This record gives sequence, C-alpha cells and structure tokens, in this order.
Amino acid sequence: MASIIRQDLSTKDWTIFSVNRAARPRDYKEIKSSKAMKRYEPGCPFCPGNEKETPEELLSINGGKDWSVRVVKNKFPAVEPKEAFGEGHFDNRHVEGPYFSIDGVGEHEVIIESPEHDDNLVKMDISHVEKIMRAYRERFIDISNDPENQLVIIFKNHGRRAGTSLDHPHSQLVATPFVPGYIRNRMFEAQRYYDDFGRCVHCDIIDYETKSKERVIYENDRFIAIAPYASVVPYNIVIYPKKHQSCFTEISPKDLLGLAEVLQTVLNKLYGLLNDPDYNYIIDSSPMDQSGNRYYHWHMEILPRLSTRAGFEIGSEMKLKYVDIEGPMWGRCLAG
Amino acid sequence: MASIIRQDLSTKDWTIFSVNRAARPRDYKEIKSSKAMKRYEPGCPFCPGNEKETPEELLSINGGKDWSVRVVKNKFPAVEPKEAFGEGHFDNRHVEGPYFSIDGVGEHEVIIESPEHDDNLVKMDISHVEKIMRAYRERFIDISNDPENQLVIIFKNHGRRAGTSLDHPHSQLVATPFVPGYIRNRMFEAQRYYDDFGRCVHCDIIDYETKSKERVIYENDRFIAIAPYASVVPYNIVIYPKKHQSCFTEISPKDLLGLAEVLQTVLNKLYGLLNDPDYNYIIDSSPMDQSGNRYYHWHMEILPRLSTRAGFEIGSEMKLKYVDIEGPMWGRCLAG
Repeated sequence: MASIIRQDLSTKDWTIFSVNRAARPRDYKEIKSSKAMKRYEPGCPFCPGNEKETPEELLSINGGKDWSVRVVKNKFPAVEPKEAFGEGHFDNRHVEGPYFSIDGVGEHEVIIESPEHDDNLVKMDISHVEKIMRAYRERFIDISNDPENQLVIIFKNHGRRAGTSLDHPHSQLVATPFVPGYIRNRMFEAQRYYDDFGRCVHCDIIDYETKSKERVIYENDRFIAIAPYASVVPYNIVIYPKKHQSCFTEISPKDLLGLAEVLQTVLNKLYGLLNDPDYNYIIDSSPMDQSGNRYYHWHMEILPRLSTRAGFEIGSEMKLKYVDIEGPMWGRCLAG
Repeated sequence: MASIIRQDLSTKDWTIFSVNRAARPRDYKEIKSSKAMKRYEPGCPFCPGNEKETPEELLSINGGKDWSVRVVKNKFPAVEPKEAFGEGHFDNRHVEGPYFSIDGVGEHEVIIESPEHDDNLVKMDISHVEKIMRAYRERFIDISNDPENQLVIIFKNHGRRAGTSLDHPHSQLVATPFVPGYIRNRMFEAQRYYDDFGRCVHCDIIDYETKSKERVIYENDRFIAIAPYASVVPYNIVIYPKKHQSCFTEISPKDLLGLAEVLQTVLNKLYGLLNDPDYNYIIDSSPMDQSGNRYYHWHMEILPRLSTRAGFEIGSEMKLKYVDIEGPMWGRCLAG
C-alpha cells in the first residue's frame, strides 16, 4: 500500500496519508543535546560504512568511500514514484462520495550533508556547505524534469522541536503531483502585485530593505538575508538571490558559494545568539508549471522553533508573537 | 505600547506583535502530568480566593464567591480595545515604506472553566460543561456586537504541547479587527461550492457522513462529531451543528446541552484511547460581516497534538500523516 493524498472538500487543502512513514526510526527517546553526539555512530544508517542500509544512491559528491555529501532515496517515503502504484496506474485522481483523492505519486529524497555524525552547518568548511548547495541544485533540477512533479520542496529539520527523527545532519527533498492551495495563493498574490505595479513583490522588498538597511542581517554580492517585516516566528530570516529568479532551478553553479556563505553566516548568528536553537529551513520556489515567471522570487526561509503554535494560530493562521516588535530589533541584534 | 498587526506584502498574511504577552507567567518548568495536579493551588491566579489577581470580570456563572465559570480580561492580551491606543486613535491602518500595518485593536478574554485547579472537561458534570458553552455563547455574542471586531475565535489549549502556559483549566476568546487571508480563502471556497451546487459544503459533508456512517464518532439530535476525510492531524475531530448555522452567534440556548454532551463524549474517547493527550480545540465561525450566510457552517475543530510540524508541512501547508489511512479507521476506533 503506497500513500494517498486527499483533498478537504471545504478548504481545498491536501493531506498526504503515508503508511510507510509510521515505521521510520527515531534515534532518541528524549531531547539530546548535539554537544553529546559522537563523530561516528555505528548504528546510524547515514554514517560511513553503513551505505548499504540506505536505499538507492542518487548522487555522491567526491564519490566512493570518501563521499562528502550523499543523496539517497528516503527509506520511509511520504510519496513514491508512479511505478510503486503498479501497472494499472494511469489517472491518479479518485472520487469517493463527494470527496477527491489522488495517489501519493512523487519523490522523497534525503541529502546526507556530511559523513560526520555530529557535524553542523555552522562549523563546516564553506566549501563543504557549497557542496550541499550543489547537491540541492542538482537534485532539484533532475526532479523538476519529470512533468509528474509539480512542486519541489527542499527543507531541513534541525533538532527535535523542528521534527527531526535522526540526528545525523541531513536535509530532504519532496516532490508532489499537485500544488497546494497555500502555494497557489502565494502565487496569486504575487501575480496580483505584478498586475498592479509591474514588478516582482520580492524584488520590491529587496530594494526597500537594501535602501533602509534596518532589517538586513547579512549580504554578499549575490544574496541578501533579511529579517522580514511581518516575520512569522521570532528570529525568522529570509535569504533572497539579489537577481530576480522565480524558481530554484534558475540558480547558477557560480551562485552556490554565495548562497552557502550567507546561509552559514546567518545560521552562525542564530547559533551564537540562541545557543544552537532548533530550526527549519525551506526553499520556497515557484511550482514547476510557473517556472521562469516575472512575479515570484524563490527564497530560503529560516524558522527557529522557539515557541509552540497554539489554538489561536492554528484557528486563524495568524502568527502571534510574544516578544518585542522584532523587525528592526532583530535585524540589529543579528547584524554585525 | 500596545500591540501592532503587520501584513506580509507577498502573502497577505498578518502577524500580531504583542509586547504584553512576553511577560505572561508560565507555571511549570517541565512537562507536568495533570495527574500530579492539586485541586487548589494558592499561587494560581485562576483559583478561588485570588479573584483580585485577574483583570476586569466580564461574566460570572452562579456569581459571587461560589462561581462555577468566570470570564475575565486576559492580563497579557494579544490585542486590546481601541481605548488602549489613546485619544488620537481614529484610523488603524498605517503605511511604512511598501508595507501596511494596523493597530492591534480587539479583545482577548479568558474563560476560567472551573474553580478547581485540576478539573478536566472529561470528568465534569455535564451541566457544568453546558455552563462553559453558555459562557462561550454569551461572550461571543457580546463581542460580536462591536463592529470593530471582525473575527471572533474561541479556543482551548490543553497541555504543554498545545501551548498552554497555565494548567488551571481555561479557554480563550480573541477578537481581531481584520479577517486573515486563511479564513477569507475558506469563505471563498465555501462560496464557490455554493455557486456550483446551491448547497453549503459542510451540510453536504454532514449528509454524506450521516448516510455512510463510516466516519461518525458520535451524534445526538442536534450535533454530530466526524473524523474528517482529510483530517489535518491524527485523531482530528470536527463537531457540527446538524442544522445549518453560519456563525456561532446563531447557536440557541437550548442547543448548548447537546454541544456539551458531544464535546465531552468525544474528549472522553480521546482521553481513554490516548491517555489524556494534549490538544487544541477551536470554534471556527463566519467572520462577523458574513454572519447569517448560506454557504458556511460553523464547527468546533479538535486537534490532538501528537506530532511536530516539520519543514515540509510548514513549507507547503500540506499535512503529512505518519499513520495508517485514518478516516475510516479512526472513525471505527473512536466509535462505540
């Protein structure tokens, strides 16, 4: 039984139901500090020597035994390629009473960021972080070539409060056969802004923040990190390419070092300020059927996990913040 | 300094920035089982005898010293009535560069559900649960009479993983001066369904589930509890009034016992099955300027907090579930 994706009739939101992921391992029983981690953990499927425990390898940087970054299929995938649905697979839409569902067709990969079990993006050589960005780019482009994949998301869950189930540093790539309403709405709002002003809304944000300087956390010649005006969590950071690019597929190989440098720098600021906080980051990119557009601008969103979403945020999707007005303040305390 | 609400230029989402809530108390340092709680806690601001520690009392059921349910203003409000913004308050929209913000005008109340510190909705007399529902109704109607309040949300955070900061059983009411895009989208989808089929989408769900029986968890003559087809978390439950009502203001006093009975029954099932899980519930109702409509149907959404939202769910607003296809199964394991 593969997974299945269902649509809520009233909200148009989608849910992925995955049988596989119920069985995935968790390598701790309680919160464990990364300081207590060993460089090598014999039982860890991502540590060197255990390469046979991971499914099909899709990419290996440096290659062979001395790999520095590996990409493999997720052993407990949320979605799977259409072959998993058998020969009869043709149309993946189903009707059940008044409801719709679609087969959970897609891709779910793991980017193993380092051979070292206790490694951390903040302490790697910058050339190693660049290799991780290269793996992101290569896998993203490869996956987006299959027309079945409509949305590709790359994300990282760092720490237990961020939803990590394995401590060994890794990120994930998921491709889905539909675009969720949440993303459609973002695209629609960006289109509406473009219709009104003739410009990409994110380009306008970058221009304004570059001039005002108040919320710029760090920048180099190709990328800029901003504490957003209406940040959704405390210490929320967004990294933009300075040049307009709608989709992560448009990043060029020579941009990767700049992205690595901005990412590592801002994570280091968070690390120092908040003592290695749990966080998620996500590459938020145009859906494949809208790549190359003028109105949307891909970005990397960093979300420290310092507080718990409660009933109000869930019921309204408004974000409640329990700290001082942060925009300018956070920009300042993270700057320099 | 009162709070302020900001709009994200690209997503149209709103964030409330609250200075006040940073100072609110937390009555534990670590996860504490409700089993270890005392019936009376001298330092708790919601326990009898400490009534002077809470701000203005808005409602007291039974009244005086022997109150059974009290509603008070939140001491650490996320939003505040317009008087808090001073005499100059007239237009609450502001422009800052390319951005918008609005003052955090609104109401934030606490419904203290019982004088007993260790009380729990699952073990109260049903007549007491009815009194809590009565407090919800009276406060909701009162607040919705002020045209400044555009959306009213009542919610409960049970347990630390659900975001509780005080153990004494309580729920909250928040009224905001705008309707978030998330709710506007729900209303729009309901309108679109009504345009297509001439019926309320939720009425159609209730009809279908009543006939198929597969996902009905419990019902009485006035209310029905369903395990939704595309549930957003494991053991997600939705309680609907069987008669079409668009807004919680439309509930009649004689409905309250029926609502109390369905709510207590399904919480009891969760309690038994999952050993007093943390959960949120939310009353999801039409915005005030759309009350009395034909296309939306208020409901109470119960969301157990068993898993952590990680990067993928955050990035896509898709819900990932790590358990067996639940709809039917959960309906069955919760039924009877």
